[in-house]
Amino acid sequence: MYRTHTCGELRAANAGQVVTLAGWVQKTRDKGFMVWVDLRDRYGITQLIFDEQRSSQAVFSQAKDLGREYVVQVIGTVIERESKNNNIATGDIEILVSELTVLNTSMVPPFTIEDDTDGGEDIRMKYRYLDIRRNPVRNSLMFRHQVGMEVRNYLSRDGFIEVETPYLIKSTPEGARDFVVPSRMNEGQFYALPQSPQTFKQLLMVGGMDKYFQIVKCFRDEDLRADRQPEFTQIDCEMAFVEQEDILNTFEGLTRHLLKTLKGVEVAEFPRMTYEDAMRRYGNDKPDIRFGMEFGELNEVSQHKDFPVFNSAELVVGIAVPGAAEYTRKEIDALIDWVKRPQIGALGMVYVKYNSDGTLKSSVDKFYDQEDLAKWATATGAKPGDLICVLSGTKNKVRNQLSALRMEMAERLGLRKPDEFAPLWVVDFPLLEWDEENARYHAMHHPFTSPKPEDIELLKTDPGAVRANAYDMVLNGNEIGGGSIRIHDKELQSNMFSLLGFTEEQAEAQFGFLMNAFQYGAPPHGGLAFGFDRLVAILGGQETIRDFIAFPKNNSGRDVMIDAPAAIDKEQLEELHIQLNMKA
Amino acid sequence: MYRTHTCGELRAANAGQVVTLAGWVQKTRDKGFMVWVDLRDRYGITQLIFDEQRSSQAVFSQAKDLGREYVVQVIGTVIERESKNNNIATGDIEILVSELTVLNTSMVPPFTIEDDTDGGEDIRMKYRYLDIRRNPVRNSLMFRHQVGMEVRNYLSRDGFIEVETPYLIKSTPEGARDFVVPSRMNEGQFYALPQSPQTFKQLLMVGGMDKYFQIVKCFRDEDLRADRQPEFTQIDCEMAFVEQEDILNTFEGLTRHLLKTLKGVEVAEFPRMTYEDAMRRYGNDKPDIRFGMEFGELNEVSQHKDFPVFNSAELVVGIAVPGAAEYTRKEIDALIDWVKRPQIGALGMVYVKYNSDGTLKSSVDKFYDQEDLAKWATATGAKPGDLICVLSGTKNKVRNQLSALRMEMAERLGLRKPDEFAPLWVVDFPLLEWDEENARYHAMHHPFTSPKPEDIELLKTDPGAVRANAYDMVLNGNEIGGGSIRIHDKELQSNMFSLLGFTEEQAEAQFGFLMNAFQYGAPPHGGLAFGFDRLVAILGGQETIRDFIAFPKNNSGRDVMIDAPAAIDKEQLEELHIQLNMKA
Repeated sequence: MYRTHTCGELRAANAGQVVTLAGWVQKTRDKGFMVWVDLRDRYGITQLIFDEQRSSQAVFSQAKDLGREYVVQVIGTVIERESKNNNIATGDIEILVSELTVLNTSMVPPFTIEDDTDGGEDIRMKYRYLDIRRNPVRNSLMFRHQVGMEVRNYLSRDGFIEVETPYLIKSTPEGARDFVVPSRMNEGQFYALPQSPQTFKQLLMVGGMDKYFQIVKCFRDEDLRADRQPEFTQIDCEMAFVEQEDILNTFEGLTRHLLKTLKGVEVAEFPRMTYEDAMRRYGNDKPDIRFGMEFGELNEVSQHKDFPVFNSAELVVGIAVPGAAEYTRKEIDALIDWVKRPQIGALGMVYVKYNSDGTLKSSVDKFYDQEDLAKWATATGAKPGDLICVLSGTKNKVRNQLSALRMEMAERLGLRKPDEFAPLWVVDFPLLEWDEENARYHAMHHPFTSPKPEDIELLKTDPGAVRANAYDMVLNGNEIGGGSIRIHDKELQSNMFSLLGFTEEQAEAQFGFLMNAFQYGAPPHGGLAFGFDRLVAILGGQETIRDFIAFPKNNSGRDVMIDAPAAIDKEQLEELHIQLNMKA
Repeated sequence: MYRTHTCGELRAANAGQVVTLAGWVQKTRDKGFMVWVDLRDRYGITQLIFDEQRSSQAVFSQAKDLGREYVVQVIGTVIERESKNNNIATGDIEILVSELTVLNTSMVPPFTIEDDTDGGEDIRMKYRYLDIRRNPVRNSLMFRHQVGMEVRNYLSRDGFIEVETPYLIKSTPEGARDFVVPSRMNEGQFYALPQSPQTFKQLLMVGGMDKYFQIVKCFRDEDLRADRQPEFTQIDCEMAFVEQEDILNTFEGLTRHLLKTLKGVEVAEFPRMTYEDAMRRYGNDKPDIRFGMEFGELNEVSQHKDFPVFNSAELVVGIAVPGAAEYTRKEIDALIDWVKRPQIGALGMVYVKYNSDGTLKSSVDKFYDQEDLAKWATATGAKPGDLICVLSGTKNKVRNQLSALRMEMAERLGLRKPDEFAPLWVVDFPLLEWDEENARYHAMHHPFTSPKPEDIELLKTDPGAVRANAYDMVLNGNEIGGGSIRIHDKELQSNMFSLLGFTEEQAEAQFGFLMNAFQYGAPPHGGLAFGFDRLVAILGGQETIRDFIAFPKNNSGRDVMIDAPAAIDKEQLEELHIQLNMKA
């Protein structure tokens, strides 16, 4: 046995016991006649003491040679400390060491193994195994485990069965780009890695599994933006004999359970908002409702004067930023520059200072009088002391821009509190979205999503107006889950494919197995998938997922620690019936 | 709401209630004036009754049109049955239906959805979603879920953290063939799918995670034998600061827990057997010890006479088959033919009938007298009534052959009872095995396995004799788990690679990241991986894994349901910087 106790468990009550500990040298303090060592493992830190008088000469001089991150085993006696350390759980005791074995030495680590490391992102990724020794990273990974266990136990208690679906499946042209795997045994053919187990979970419903879930890796070969990974994890769920209401209730229950058990937060019934409303009120289908600053549409109260910018706009819309009336001219100019950055793309910004004396001072006083501006204040819910920021343009663009500004201002004002949780359902998504470039419809969710029964007639006359039985769960401005009631009728599914531009042959080749399955008694069904990485990060109070993934890839899809991907042997390529086709 | 109750929950106490059920039509019985329907869902079967007198005309005639596997929703009143059915949990009641909605029709299924189906393997795989509706398959999948939950909860309670390791990693020439994934963003480079998370779990130990586990898919592109899948699931575990003893105790505890909670079976402490002993006593490193028939080595008592076959053999070895002395000449000849089949490969078999009167009658009476044969009986533990079967040849071959015969006889005698569980640790595996063909050593477990400290000196002089700190858990003649204490020293790991024929450059290119990690304070560590598919199958009392996998692939690695793998678009290939390289 390498140890009798961990480095996190000894207390004053253990005083007098002879114990064996093992762990890493966090740091040593050498006072000449005495050496203290902080010994660290996953469970905590225990102070070791080596004493010129009480320790043997051999052990004492060994202790003086210990370096950071050496792996040691010690035998010693637990003694109560004279000066206790209340910052750590073992702070009441220390170990007077009688035997010391160096199990492994360590070179000096390329960055400090401390909560606030001096290591940059790149070096931390290359030495991820050292990064994981740091509390924030290790705690994030342990928290992820805890969330996973809670999810599994909750769903299992509720009758859900975790079923593993295959990873080597078939490539489909719909959706994102697939990662593919050449088949050695089936010459010229390829598997694809799943973007999600969508069709398999639907087949499990056809198969009568009734309630399915899986915490599962999914893969998308897309250009990586910050905080996107080529492989990511989903909590994938599906239920049979359900309507949208059943699904919302089930997964609201799960999320409420997670918030309560993991964060000690009780949340009320989740508000529900239509996609339409979310776009109108927040310019965003995943609004952060931890704070206000709702949009006020100003067309009616701004297009009656001679201000051509507004008069020619499809939408004039503003928000009241609390307390920002005190912004200086310089600060406001900086804000205007901010909305004009290419990432935001506004052409300018009109502002109104609602002074604390009740007067209104705007950048468009030439066009609008106090009465006009008072109406803007009413529409945006502004109070004295607020700064009203107004953007204008085409509806979709201006909503995006103002939403970005709203989030930025909330960030600056400290309104996006990581320990506050404001979940929300966004419902009634459009079934289709028009793709200008390719002059065709795309499925907004995916091609298996059911239109609302009352909108089915519109499929023939105005497909763009058809609403879907689709829903997103939003938490603190992030979409953490999304799903839909599925089509379970062959005819409707086939119509859907043709609306999406599939020929009958293409639909048959890609999804024939699913449509075939629908002919053998497919039950009504629907489901939802949570983005597990993001869910864990948000519950952990952070917005970036990287520290919640043990071995993440960088923005070029590389694992810099193991240096993958890499070239493979010619023989390997030959066996797989492929060869390289490199650009000159 | 589609239903108020499932088809498995109504009892006599519910009589009088109006309920809504939904499910599949298992079968209908039409007696003219009355129609009974068995309505099925995951939870059970409930009998519906439609009655010319008590049902409306419309509902009654609808009922007459129902076909097998139609999906229906019914509203009706629970009534107590006159003739109760004790075979099903809901057998005390039936539902007098007042409203019937057909949610979906069904074509006639290609095989019967019953416990004993008339469908062959191929058709069941093609329509796997229908196969899953059958109790045996669905129950197997639900059992798998249950095993997974027990494993996770047990390990989690014991302080193990489930950490997800990446699926897109790097190809390594050691071990089985990798599945690879061409990278679009890294021209000419490939990811590999993991054959196991071996190096990552070791890095997690270097990273201080202390106790790791993961239930995880692994991939091997090998030619498929019956009951092998290209993608399979492991319970992968690793611990730091442990010796072999700690690991054996931990996972013996887990397995005992599974047997107790899932099967109600209490097993004693697992016996331990060295690899050497297992080979000598059972001719097999995964012996089934539910029954005896241990090997008796007969060299000493058979090589003193003039029987050249035995005298020239490296090993003469036999087993006593209980009660088989009564085999007829014809039956014995058939047995001899059986061992001479190419799959077994014996050149012949000597037998001794130990008659119930105590006399011994052998096929080699010409060479051996009663006294000789009595010694054979003693060596094989034969009792009157047994048949002693003796094979001879080179040690490894003959052990294999006799092991196969032992298993065959146990099968015939019904000694391999699926509800009996005999676990066992096999320990002290050799570190290396000699590969005749390539004239080099292979790692018997893998290149990260630690030699026994006391054998390390032998590495230089007689590598083949070095024993490893490696162990297998064997259950009922199947290896269900295996692992080892790992090397955690850079020097030793580097020596190991060179013993295995790696040049320094190759070792560095493939595993440099691991050896580098060992320089930063790697703790002693070791672990184990269970084959989850097999474990579940054996706990489920079966030897084939296929029904415990929702969507298995066939022996050509194809998913015949979705028809994968398949050709992909030229554009897709181009994006991935590869092209096909087909044989003419």
